[in-house]
Formats: sequence, structure tokens, C-alpha cells
Amino acid sequence: MTSAPVRVGLLGCGNVGAALVGLLATQADDIEARTGLRLELGRVAVRNLARARAIDLPTGCLTHDANEVVNDPSIDVIVEVIGGIEPARSLVLDALKAGKPVVTANKELLANVGADLFAAADAAGVDLLFEAAVAGGIPLVRPLRESLIGERVRRVMGIVNGTTNYILTRMSADGATYADALAEAQSLGYAERDPTADVEGYDAGAKAAIIASIAFGVNVVAGDVYHEGISGLTSDDITFAHRLGYEIKLLAIAEQTDDGRVGVRVHPAMLPKGHPLATVRDSFNAVFIEGDAVGQLMFYGRGAGGGPTASAVLGDLIDAAGNLRSGSHASLGRMPRAELQPIDEVRSEYYLNLEVVDRPGVLHAVSGVFAEHGVSIRSMEQEGLGDEARLVFITHEAPESAIQATLRGLDDLDAVDRISSMLRVIAGS
Amino acid sequence: MTSAPVRVGLLGCGNVGAALVGLLATQADDIEARTGLRLELGRVAVRNLARARAIDLPTGCLTHDANEVVNDPSIDVIVEVIGGIEPARSLVLDALKAGKPVVTANKELLANVGADLFAAADAAGVDLLFEAAVAGGIPLVRPLRESLIGERVRRVMGIVNGTTNYILTRMSADGATYADALAEAQSLGYAERDPTADVEGYDAGAKAAIIASIAFGVNVVAGDVYHEGISGLTSDDITFAHRLGYEIKLLAIAEQTDDGRVGVRVHPAMLPKGHPLATVRDSFNAVFIEGDAVGQLMFYGRGAGGGPTASAVLGDLIDAAGNLRSGSHASLGRMPRAELQPIDEVRSEYYLNLEVVDRPGVLHAVSGVFAEHGVSIRSMEQEGLGDEARLVFITHEAPESAIQATLRGLDDLDAVDRISSMLRVIAGS
Repeated sequence: MTSAPVRVGLLGCGNVGAALVGLLATQADDIEARTGLRLELGRVAVRNLARARAIDLPTGCLTHDANEVVNDPSIDVIVEVIGGIEPARSLVLDALKAGKPVVTANKELLANVGADLFAAADAAGVDLLFEAAVAGGIPLVRPLRESLIGERVRRVMGIVNGTTNYILTRMSADGATYADALAEAQSLGYAERDPTADVEGYDAGAKAAIIASIAFGVNVVAGDVYHEGISGLTSDDITFAHRLGYEIKLLAIAEQTDDGRVGVRVHPAMLPKGHPLATVRDSFNAVFIEGDAVGQLMFYGRGAGGGPTASAVLGDLIDAAGNLRSGSHASLGRMPRAELQPIDEVRSEYYLNLEVVDRPGVLHAVSGVFAEHGVSIRSMEQEGLGDEARLVFITHEAPESAIQATLRGLDDLDAVDRISSMLRVIAGS
Repeated sequence: MTSAPVRVGLLGCGNVGAALVGLLATQADDIEARTGLRLELGRVAVRNLARARAIDLPTGCLTHDANEVVNDPSIDVIVEVIGGIEPARSLVLDALKAGKPVVTANKELLANVGADLFAAADAAGVDLLFEAAVAGGIPLVRPLRESLIGERVRRVMGIVNGTTNYILTRMSADGATYADALAEAQSLGYAERDPTADVEGYDAGAKAAIIASIAFGVNVVAGDVYHEGISGLTSDDITFAHRLGYEIKLLAIAEQTDDGRVGVRVHPAMLPKGHPLATVRDSFNAVFIEGDAVGQLMFYGRGAGGGPTASAVLGDLIDAAGNLRSGSHASLGRMPRAELQPIDEVRSEYYLNLEVVDRPGVLHAVSGVFAEHGVSIRSMEQEGLGDEARLVFITHEAPESAIQATLRGLDDLDAVDRISSMLRVIAGS
């Protein structure tokens, strides 16, 4: 089984890169015993040479110049863990054109210019693998691309952002306010000082675009994804969710309509407590898949962190190295641009929480607005708030456009003081 | 992309076979569009020709003689869903020797003579794929074999028998007795009239052997697996589990010790309510994996049933067809016989429930037996039962041999009327 090692060029050496360096060192013998492939770290490109010295690397391995790694003829495979679009995009394209397979953990890159990169990989006849880009250490891309390739997948719903799931878990389990939970996440290093990308759903949106692309074989980009974040959620929302039998989670949802269009969105939603996704706590991620034959599947694990992400990169790296040796490669095939379903047409159940003046006839007026827009009410609770009353509704399934029209109609009613919140509700199975 | 179809020979046409026939009919166009492979059902061998007429099959496709299908030169790939060891074993070996890849859903076959079959597949240079044999529709074999091939997997714990999980869910959620829950499972078709294979852990044991083999790259057979079933569990056990913060699940556990030995066992266990496996309800299956780099993973879905199992078979079939076309094949590599860890050496926390005479000094005598065998008590509860008292212990981690010695010592005490139950406890993470 002895043959020349497969030499790995690593672009970027932050958390994930450093963890990969460690894994390559400890696992290379096992991997060789299992696969006959000897993986060897060749070159590592880092931004900050001084900082990288903490990692145990062969002498002369480090460089400041990523192009040098990509163009080094002794390097067989490239791992890109720089993040962001440029220079990652140019480096990946150069590597692919040079016939070098690329493994990347870069969701921004794939969610924005993935189609170009996949075309370049296909043209060069080499792999572009990205298991780590979607849900960190959770094997998801490979099961979707391979195990479920014969399956008619209807919907994929994921908790794909660990920061927001941590915040929501603290709000749900400990009664923390959004602000306190965010501060705690920041102090633990789960949330950035500027948490916008996480809490407003941009990160989950990029992942949703990639998930939709693989699940349905069409090209969806980050800009296609409708997204709402969790920064508007209050402790009251959590309290009412619990009382009604739900947990609130930030979900990335990709689904295919019967006419072949694809709807992709990120928003907080109320999930029945018995739903497998409702029990996913702290910074864990999980992706729930519904298919015609297979029924319900869920994949659960760590969506971020050096170790889990490096584990996914390593799985891809072994695959890419094997394919390089055998002269084969995995292909996503042609991915036509997705026909998107506008958010207005998405059907869901909804939770509405209104503060109204407490006088006779108000419920009649409010329910009239629902009726006017064809929205059917599944349940209603009323509670007194001194001079006011609170009305909490769960609707039957309705199109988003009808709910938005209902919200505008309610806003116009004198008797409605405030629409405290509107959340989509995932129907129980 | 047009090339000759890949012709499938199907051995067995029960629930899974019939579902596969349906999937091949509805999905063939999609599969061809995505992969360039045209799958075509060639021949189907059934035991009962009359019964098989309900399925929509091409004329002349059916035969009573499975050998005819295997030896038909127009058949490229064999799907074996007969179950049991013979004639499945001979048929699979004949197919492999003839250079035909085989996809099987047959856990008995793999858990008993898998090593021979994998060697035959390697010798012939073709695939022997078996995703459907372990956890039905859940992608598990492929993630373990491919995504996690670079991962140091420490432990795999699964709920891999839907019948027993259904029974335990009824006992836990509805307070049903074991007998009533079993009767309900039988009336719903989840349990056989003779439920032994499910409720005594034989089915889960076969799956545990396969899981251990893939996870650790060593050959484990069904006979290596220590197993206990759920037929001795009582409503009291469930009540105490809940009171202490646990759910009871039948777990298949495969773990590797630091010295490379493999422990494989099936038994009911108390799982902390916050553990992802504790929330797996009804007839769903789930497999929880712990690895050094990736941390905790869980795969959840339908472990049985025609549709889910056929979905897994189809994923393998597409893979095998592609590999056949490209002249490659997946290999498990050499699998040396596992060095097994005896059950006596397994370390766990334990739950013990004793009925004792209610007089001073009894707790002192009982705790003396624990101490004598080096078993440390983590918590104890005592409750009165008229003339008797009930003592409920949770121990710290101890080797099985020490617990067994403790149980014998307790049995010898005059003050102990009855050891109501002993259950292993999975430590919280």
C-alpha cells in the first residue's frame, strides 16, 4: 500500500486550520492503514507569521503568500479555510485550474459564487468539496448528495447557527432576556462583538442557500434567501410559546413546491415541543429532512468550532485525495438557476400577539380582519392587562401575503394598541 | 449522457422490495438527470408468484428461482432483500463472484458472515453495500465509512430497534404496562406475534455488531454481542427513572477502549432526559456518535418500514451502479477479528432498586455490601412500603464485575427481600 504521500496545502490557519494540522498529525497513520492514502501537510499560508508559530509545523512550511502554496508543484490538494469571498475565490479558482482538488469550509464563498466554482471544478475534472461549510462537523452534504440522491426531498429545516441557538436556549431554559443572553454568548466567545451576521440571520441564510442548492440540484445564492433574525424576540414570546406547547428556534428552511420552485428562508419559528428540532439545545446544530420515501431524518451535532469543522474538512480531504489518485471526482452536475418561490406565497400557520383596548366588540372587530383576508383562526386566548387585554391567536395555514394584509388591517383598527409579535408556526407532524 | 441502462436484479419482493420497485419507477428519470445513470428493473425473484402480482412489474420479469436472476447475464447489479442467512449468503456470494455488485438490507447475513462476504466483494473488485441493514432509512454506514473515516470514534450508542422504542415510549408517555404496550405494538404491526427477536435484543445485537465493525474497522459478529432485552422492565422502573430525571431506552452500544479493544452490548439503560437519544420517541431510531474531533453527532430517522429502507437501498444502488460504470468500488479494507472487551470489564453507573425490611441498621448493612466491592454510591432514596422499605441507589461509575458481586452480596443479606431491578445509567455529558 505504500505510495507517494498526498501533499496538502493549507490556506489559513485560524481555529479550523490549526485543528486540522493537529488531526493530520495524530490521524495520518490510521488513515493510511484504513485507506492506503498518506496525507502530508506540505505548505501553510497564514496572514500573521508570528501568531502561527504556536502551532507545531515542519520548518519552512509557513508562508505569508497563499499563491505560493497554490502554485507549488509539490502540493496536490488545497484546503481553503480563510473565509470571505476574496482572495479565497481567486485562490480556489487558480487551484482548480491547476488540477488541484479543493476542500473548503467557506460558506460565504459557496453561497455567493458557488456555481462558478463548481463549474470550474467540473471543467478541471477535480473535486470541490465543502462538507464543513454548511453545518460544521455534521455529515450533511455527503448524505444529501449521495445517500439521498434517489430521494424526492420535500423540505429541509435546520438550526444552522449555534450562536442564536445558544441565545434562544438561555431565553427558554433560564428565562434570560435577549440582551442578557446575547451578552452571555459574547462573553463565552459564541457571539462576536458585532453579532449582526448571526442574530439577523445572514449566516444562516448563506447556509440555507447552500442546503437548497444541494437538496434540490439548483443554484440558490445568499441574496435569494428571505431572512429575519432573533433580535426582536422578547421574553413574552418565549413565555407564550411555552404556554402553547412550543419552543422558538431560528430555522433555515428550504423547500420545493410541487411545481418545482424552491422557497428558501430564515426566520424564528414556533416548533411543537415534540418536534425533534425543538430539543436541540445550546450551541448545537441540527438539520431535519423530509423526503417522500425516507420520511423524516435528522442530523445533529456541532455546527462550528475548530475540532468539529476540521473533522469535516478531513473527511473531505481523504475523499479528494482518493479521487485524485483514482482519477475520478464528485460532481454536482449542472445546477440551473433556481426558480424561487416568493415569501408572499409561502404558506404557514402563524402566531399573533395583540394588545387591544378592553371593551366589548373588540374581538368581533379583530376577528373580522382575519376573516376579510381569508385567514382562519385555530385558537385564541384572551387575558386582561388592566385597561387593556391581550389577544393571542394561532391561525390555520395561510399564505404570507394574507397574514401581512391582516397585520396591516389590524394596525388600522382603533381598538388595536399594539401588535406585539408575529411568528410563523411549524405545524406538528 | 445516454448510455445502456444498469439492469437491477431484485431478490425478494416483500415490503422493502415492493417499495423499491415503486421508487425505481417514479425516480428513474430524476436519477438519470442527476447522475447520468439509467436504472432499470430487470428480474425479480419471489417466493410466492401469486402474491407478487399485486406489484406492477414488466411481463416476464418475475421468477421463482433466485439463481436465475443472479446468473442472468443481462443483470448488472443484485439487490438482496430476502433476509436470513441461507439462501441469501449463497446468492450474494455467487453474484459477487460473477462480478455483480450487491446491495443488501440483510442484517442477519452481515452480522454473521459479513467478513466472508466483504472479502469476496474485495476479491471480485465490486461493491457490497448495506446502508439499509443497520438503521433502515437513516444514512449511517456512509457517514461512518466516509465522512468520519479520519475521525477517532470513541463510542456509538443507538436506538436501533423501533419495536422496543415504541413499547418503551408507550410505557413512558402513557404509563402503559409492558404487556399492554407490547400488545398495542403487535396490533399495529410494529411487533411480531413472537416478539423475541425484538424485545430480547437479538435484532439490536445484530445491528450493534455491524455498527462496531464499521466504526472501528474490525470484525464483530452477532454472537460477540452481550445482550439483555426489555421484557423484564416494569412500570415502576419507568416511574423511578422519571423521578430521577431519566428515560429508559434499549441501547446498542459499541465502544473502543484506549488499548484498542471493542466492547459491544445491547441492554436497557437510563439516559438523562437532556440527552439527545432520550427524546427519540415511538418507532423512530437514532444513532449517537462520540468522536475526538467532531464531538457529539446524532443521526435520527426511520429504522424500518418499506419506504425508508427502500430509500437507503436506492442510495446504495445508485452508488454501486456508478462504481460499476467507472470500474471502482468501495472497500472496507482488511477487517481483523475484534479483540473484545468482556462485559465484566465495562464501566458504567448503575441504578439499583431494592425492597428491604424496614428496621434500623438495614441501610448500614446494605451500604456495607457496596463498600466491600468498591462501589461508590452517588445518590440514595428511601421510601416506606408498609412493613418494608424501598431503597433506590444510583452508583458512581464501577466495573460490571463489581456490580454483579454487589448484587450477589445483597441477595445474601437477610434484610434484602428482593432486588427489584438493576439498570445501567448513561452518565450525563
